[in-house]
Amino acid sequence: MIAVLKPNTSPEQREHLINWLKTMVTDVHISEGKAYTVLGLVGDTSRIDPELLESLDIVESVQRVSEPYKKCSRQFHPEDTVVEVGKAKIGAEFCLIAGPCSVETEAQIIDVAERVKAAGADVLRGGAFKPRTSPYDFQGLKGEGLRLLSEAKKVTGLPLVSEIMSIDTLDLFEDVDIIQVGARNMQNFDLLKELGHLDRPILLKRGLAGTLKELLMSAEYIMAGGNEKIILCERGIRTYETMTRNTLDLSAVPVLQERTHLPVIVDPSHATGLSRLVPPMALAAAAAGADGIMVEVHNDPAHALCDGAQSLTPEQFADLSSRVRKILEAMKA
Amino acid sequence: MIAVLKPNTSPEQREHLINWLKTMVTDVHISEGKAYTVLGLVGDTSRIDPELLESLDIVESVQRVSEPYKKCSRQFHPEDTVVEVGKAKIGAEFCLIAGPCSVETEAQIIDVAERVKAAGADVLRGGAFKPRTSPYDFQGLKGEGLRLLSEAKKVTGLPLVSEIMSIDTLDLFEDVDIIQVGARNMQNFDLLKELGHLDRPILLKRGLAGTLKELLMSAEYIMAGGNEKIILCERGIRTYETMTRNTLDLSAVPVLQERTHLPVIVDPSHATGLSRLVPPMALAAAAAGADGIMVEVHNDPAHALCDGAQSLTPEQFADLSSRVRKILEAMKA
Amino acid sequence: MIAVLKPNTSPEQREHLINWLKTMVTDVHISEGKAYTVLGLVGDTSRIDPELLESLDIVESVQRVSEPYKKCSRQFHPEDTVVEVGKAKIGAEFCLIAGPCSVETEAQIIDVAERVKAAGADVLRGGAFKPRTSPYDFQGLKGEGLRLLSEAKKVTGLPLVSEIMSIDTLDLFEDVDIIQVGARNMQNFDLLKELGHLDRPILLKRGLAGTLKELLMSAEYIMAGGNEKIILCERGIRTYETMTRNTLDLSAVPVLQERTHLPVIVDPSHATGLSRLVPPMALAAAAAGADGIMVEVHNDPAHALCDGAQSLTPEQFADLSSRVRKILEAMKA
Amino acid sequence: MIAVLKPNTSPEQREHLINWLKTMVTDVHISEGKAYTVLGLVGDTSRIDPELLESLDIVESVQRVSEPYKKCSRQFHPEDTVVEVGKAKIGAEFCLIAGPCSVETEAQIIDVAERVKAAGADVLRGGAFKPRTSPYDFQGLKGEGLRLLSEAKKVTGLPLVSEIMSIDTLDLFEDVDIIQVGARNMQNFDLLKELGHLDRPILLKRGLAGTLKELLMSAEYIMAGGNEKIILCERGIRTYETMTRNTLDLSAVPVLQERTHLPVIVDPSHATGLSRLVPPMALAAAAAGADGIMVEVHNDPAHALCDGAQSLTPEQFADLSSRVRKILEAMKA
Repeated sequence: MIAVLKPNTSPEQREHLINWLKTMVTDVHISEGKAYTVLGLVGDTSRIDPELLESLDIVESVQRVSEPYKKCSRQFHPEDTVVEVGKAKIGAEFCLIAGPCSVETEAQIIDVAERVKAAGADVLRGGAFKPRTSPYDFQGLKGEGLRLLSEAKKVTGLPLVSEIMSIDTLDLFEDVDIIQVGARNMQNFDLLKELGHLDRPILLKRGLAGTLKELLMSAEYIMAGGNEKIILCERGIRTYETMTRNTLDLSAVPVLQERTHLPVIVDPSHATGLSRLVPPMALAAAAAGADGIMVEVHNDPAHALCDGAQSLTPEQFADLSSRVRKILEAMKA
Repeated sequence: MIAVLKPNTSPEQREHLINWLKTMVTDVHISEGKAYTVLGLVGDTSRIDPELLESLDIVESVQRVSEPYKKCSRQFHPEDTVVEVGKAKIGAEFCLIAGPCSVETEAQIIDVAERVKAAGADVLRGGAFKPRTSPYDFQGLKGEGLRLLSEAKKVTGLPLVSEIMSIDTLDLFEDVDIIQVGARNMQNFDLLKELGHLDRPILLKRGLAGTLKELLMSAEYIMAGGNEKIILCERGIRTYETMTRNTLDLSAVPVLQERTHLPVIVDPSHATGLSRLVPPMALAAAAAGADGIMVEVHNDPAHALCDGAQSLTPEQFADLSSRVRKILEAMKA
Repeated sequence: MIAVLKPNTSPEQREHLINWLKTMVTDVHISEGKAYTVLGLVGDTSRIDPELLESLDIVESVQRVSEPYKKCSRQFHPEDTVVEVGKAKIGAEFCLIAGPCSVETEAQIIDVAERVKAAGADVLRGGAFKPRTSPYDFQGLKGEGLRLLSEAKKVTGLPLVSEIMSIDTLDLFEDVDIIQVGARNMQNFDLLKELGHLDRPILLKRGLAGTLKELLMSAEYIMAGGNEKIILCERGIRTYETMTRNTLDLSAVPVLQERTHLPVIVDPSHATGLSRLVPPMALAAAAAGADGIMVEVHNDPAHALCDGAQSLTPEQFADLSSRVRKILEAMKA
Repeated sequence: MIAVLKPNTSPEQREHLINWLKTMVTDVHISEGKAYTVLGLVGDTSRIDPELLESLDIVESVQRVSEPYKKCSRQFHPEDTVVEVGKAKIGAEFCLIAGPCSVETEAQIIDVAERVKAAGADVLRGGAFKPRTSPYDFQGLKGEGLRLLSEAKKVTGLPLVSEIMSIDTLDLFEDVDIIQVGARNMQNFDLLKELGHLDRPILLKRGLAGTLKELLMSAEYIMAGGNEKIILCERGIRTYETMTRNTLDLSAVPVLQERTHLPVIVDPSHATGLSRLVPPMALAAAAAGADGIMVEVHNDPAHALCDGAQSLTPEQFADLSSRVRKILEAMKA
């Protein structure tokens, strides 16, 4: 950690600060500049809060030189982590996750599961516990929804991903292969800690206002508990633009892949909120080097008829799947 | 709810949509324009997802006409809600909440409590469970911290506010008068639902990317469970500006007070992250009509010596308290 | 335009408002709801300021039903506009624009021009007038820079694109085939109006805080003057994320293409600010359906040696160019 | 400037970089850490682009230690700048600027001028050149508007402030005491340079996505030309919140006052877009220590009747003016 002291700092103030810092780190290197003095803190700086240090009157600025995340950093773990689920090897081979936003009926989920499998999906997604902005909106089928997902898994053999909202419901997730943490819970640290004790893959979504560094720190919470099977997911961030629901930040893919060994997938359905934007953004995600995509697919005839909503029809998904494969082949060639 | 159909919508598509809508609402009024057709949905529209409707190919745009929050809306409850805690009547009289970011020792919390009380504080704040971005940072004294807060309450008589992060720790909060929901948990809906069953005031902080509408919807989650003692708190939102930690959105005060009967307070300490910005922003909050402020105060000599950090010293707080009183008197005059 | 009146609006207030509106539009349709009254304004609503209307005490909300941009709207002009420059047909065939951020010397610009041409570039870019945040930073070679670009055009035959900052310098742009309006000038309306009188293609960049609607309105300023040869360019928007310089909003590509007939290209160099992020984002732009990309390429050995900065080396650009072609072929197949 | 090199940097790479840096600065101090090496650049670092340096593969991060603005920095000019216009001493005494958004008729502007003067206004504002998002919206009375402002000045003696959009219209501004640069032109550097050659006060508004540092750099552009009479104006920034037009960033007031000697005023009318939010935000601005406020006031009976829009009526302004005075007295006491 480096701290730059302001000009006109008195020798007493400076000495006082250095003595205080020395109680916490191994050593403090001092470089005198023309106007500014630079302190280099050597040793374990984890006990120093950079925001507190920066807020001191005599400190101009503070800069961390080592990243605060260790276990998820590529620096100390250069090889890609591969999360194996069913036949999918997420992080080694491109992964297609598809399924309905909410599980509604047994017929629905089995029909969608069979059709996305036929179109090349590797994992079935389906929401049973739904985080809704309004307490009056449909909150999901909960335990019954997870039971229906299990049926679809039995029929198709597809592994499952579904969102958890509270650790108290963990028992119901026994048959779920990948447990999803939604955007709103990216910094629900108590939930992350609990998931760190599991031996089950976690799909961690970026929060609406989550920085990439915070996303990595949240992954670190899970890894600090011992669970290293984490899949990161970019799903759009909140900006001032209103023509899309959120702004899909695709540059997150190469930036995260540079910093961490964990696989990074993209959810274009929630990011854009409009089914007609899903195919171009899914293709773009593949071309940007994502390790997979997660796409909403439904078979609801009312929706299908109007060709709308956030979800693709199974036919649209099959078309997208084959176009994604062509992009992936073009990238290997 | 109003839906505007695109030009060139075929009569079949239109009829199909209207029939589908009629299965959900009482009636659909149709107004033909030159290019556009406008559908007015009459009756209970809560079963219609406006985002889904808007995503349909033939729909240009959708607009809610009634607010989705009922219990916290001023429309159906014009009188101000007053939350009484100790001698404080939050919503009727300006409320000063003060105390350290984290409870550290018995001596610390009692000393701060006595000094902020002497300076005019109505409620003592202190963190026992701390949401930290990094799993390696200090996470608070937890149960022991709450016990020390109780000691300070015994000595000074000040009511307490402290943050909860998981409903599993509720038993430890028995002596806490106001339970705080932090910014990161504003949309932890499972936690909100549980707090809705309590008969205890809740201080609900706006999330870093939370819209004012979402803040009201989160209050609605608590109220839907039966608990109507809610205090809303503006604490800064995430923007592109980096000279302050977050951007304090003071216009949230009059906007919220127009929409809801719940009291609205302001936390200038977390919003700005710099103690020297706390007094001007606290005075501005009072002048904007806030129902109170929540300010960090510590007595740590290391901090005090450097006159920095996010927290005020007790002396600075006493000075601020008397300046706030002058503003409040000027506004009554 | 639709205006929703608040409940409890008195008949007098309502009548007063309707009479006022009738002085401006052809007719006002009134629909009575349970709680709300909806006014449908028929005719030319361009004289009504929706923000003013919405700010009236008795008005709940206002919604435009027709887009305020006419000439650039696809609604009234369904076929794609194709801007022809040299051999490039922007809007019909994918266009590769490449060149240095700033023109430095004749040797530099000719060398880069020859190498990007060999690698498949269709247009040469080069900055002569540079908008710099600081008055003390290098402001470009100005007229001399444009003269050197002309030399490179003579040698290679590549058409030129370069940024204008003030209409007073227009004479110097005689040999420039596409005049660029930078992000900071997206709403410099006086400049846009002047460019509307030219018969020369304009490359209009999205502002750092520009909405897509505002970008289209700025294109409309140019088209209103008679110049319809406009190329829109997404170049990243300002968000809270700091790991990239700006956040590249690739969903802007399909959203714009849906709304307008104008071609849409992407600048991944300025958006990310880091050369190693340029190839993945350029490939993603192609896969998202962009009509072209604009990429910074330099031949500076100091930079090249360190393999850094925002610019690609000519070798990196040649590699990117061939990978982009593979993506484009995969998309046609 | 400080550059931190990544671990695993080879000695050759390091030496190459250091030699290159030494061609530009006086000296390079090297501090070896456990994993990182820190380079301290001594001397004039203005020729080094920190973004370029940071983008190099071997560089972890770069930090400026001295601010890039000199003339507007309080560091080298500790005393407050006072801009005197008429009887107003902006920077020394609180300044009330009021008037209509657009000048419409002679009767209108004179009536408003007389009434805001009676209510305590120090300066009359009025728009003659209007930056409008749409080319089809009213663009202001232009020269005729400025002539009408002159009439109002003759009658009332109030000094004038009005917005310029292009330097070509400067001649028309002869009688305008303070020339305003609007938010959209904050980084119209060619315009700023021209205004730097005038001997007339400039009111510089913060751009919608302008950082405080960029605002100061834009002031520096004007000051670099010799014109040091600059008034900075916070007028709301663009965020994701939609209940107000923009988000008024009042913490900008103390932050700017700490960094610069220039006066800082606040425009609550444009920031919020709603007249009923103007009084609380104006009072808050005064309490935050602003050097003045700029408020829209009109006398249009249609607006007045509905009590709406962004503008206050003269009666509302008179009430606000007396309440602001009470806040200012309370702060002095």
